[in-house]
Amino acid sequence: MATLMENEAFMAFTTYATIVILKMMLMAPMTGYFRFSRGAFSNEEDVSGKSAEEKKKLLRTHPDVERVRRCHQNDLENIIPFVVVGLLYALTEPELSTALLHFRIFAGSRICHTIAYVGALPQPSRGLSWIVGMLVTFSMAYRVLSTVLLL
Amino acid sequence: MATLMENEAFMAFTTYATIVILKMMLMAPMTGYFRFSRGAFSNEEDVSGKSAEEKKKLLRTHPDVERVRRCHQNDLENIIPFVVVGLLYALTEPELSTALLHFRIFAGSRICHTIAYVGALPQPSRGLSWIVGMLVTFSMAYRVLSTVLLL
Amino acid sequence: MATLMENEAFMAFTTYATIVILKMMLMAPMTGYFRFSRGAFSNEEDVSGKSAEEKKKLLRTHPDVERVRRCHQNDLENIIPFVVVGLLYALTEPELSTALLHFRIFAGSRICHTIAYVGALPQPSRGLSWIVGMLVTFSMAYRVLSTVLLL
Repeated sequence: MATLMENEAFMAFTTYATIVILKMMLMAPMTGYFRFSRGAFSNEEDVSGKSAEEKKKLLRTHPDVERVRRCHQNDLENIIPFVVVGLLYALTEPELSTALLHFRIFAGSRICHTIAYVGALPQPSRGLSWIVGMLVTFSMAYRVLSTVLLL
Repeated sequence: MATLMENEAFMAFTTYATIVILKMMLMAPMTGYFRFSRGAFSNEEDVSGKSAEEKKKLLRTHPDVERVRRCHQNDLENIIPFVVVGLLYALTEPELSTALLHFRIFAGSRICHTIAYVGALPQPSRGLSWIVGMLVTFSMAYRVLSTVLLL
Repeated sequence: MATLMENEAFMAFTTYATIVILKMMLMAPMTGYFRFSRGAFSNEEDVSGKSAEEKKKLLRTHPDVERVRRCHQNDLENIIPFVVVGLLYALTEPELSTALLHFRIFAGSRICHTIAYVGALPQPSRGLSWIVGMLVTFSMAYRVLSTVLLL
């Protein structure tokens, strides 16, 4: 087992996978922050102790909350494939510099994506950062399938 | 390869990862159960063979169905990061007792979370169980990054 | 490390995991295609440069877009558990033929599921392909837990 964590490409994967997963997890407190500051909840038990009228007003959707949730969902749809394909990619013994290039670009692209999404920056900032992340994952998937193919 | 499955911390991870993933998968049949019992579908082909009027009535959202779906979504947002970070954590050769403590608390917190969410228990039961799960994952991520950091 | 990628069951897992993850990722461009062809967007910055009236018309949901998004969500809910459980399963050293049988049926079931979902084929095509995928994951989880159980 020690051999895995002594392999540099795998160590680099471990580092970046943890970073992007942590970034994804931070979307949850951010959603919570927007829910409280905007007063937009989705569960009745979250607004208990209020008058019936106030409850009705608080149980709603708010554009800012929905925006953060869409960003979180996009993370799930992109970061998890990166982690899965990246793990397999790291096991194909790529060169460290190539692996690092992939991981760094992906992490950077997702951080840009979050800023562009939550900040509602004008397109194509969000679109481009999304595509760059996709291409990194495709590139790693190509390497995986061309190295290990057992159908 | 055998070495991985002979390592006790990794075996513990394997056990708990499978358990929490199975728990997450059970949300799908539960959604199906609520869809049928509450009569709330989202696809036209799911209500074929009914009169046009009945179809319209069945193609709707229902609070109970939406509640289970939010719980399922929360599982996706929390259990998958746990599995990814937990896998890397198990590979850093933690002490078995420390690893077991992490995994057990996480599994427990997610089971409590599901009961609190689906049962609509008063807060902070759901909030607390969610935070405990997050903290376990953060603690493992801290250990991973402080053991293996290759940027 | 090399030993992992020399193990045939693990190579088979690598191949099929990459394939189903790629399939899942293709739902994103498909959503984009339906968003543009149906004219249904969810972010204001995606419809910038249009008149206020046109913007209002484009910021809406469309049944075709929602259908693809539900299919994507279902992939997240099923393919990721498959990948996690499948990885652990491949590490339990199953027979290659048994492992291949699991992976092939799963990949096939998810491709059928997508066709049935996006094409809105009559039930039970979608339901059956979903259940087959679930059963494959359950079967692998059973093998994992009966081989490696450390609670």
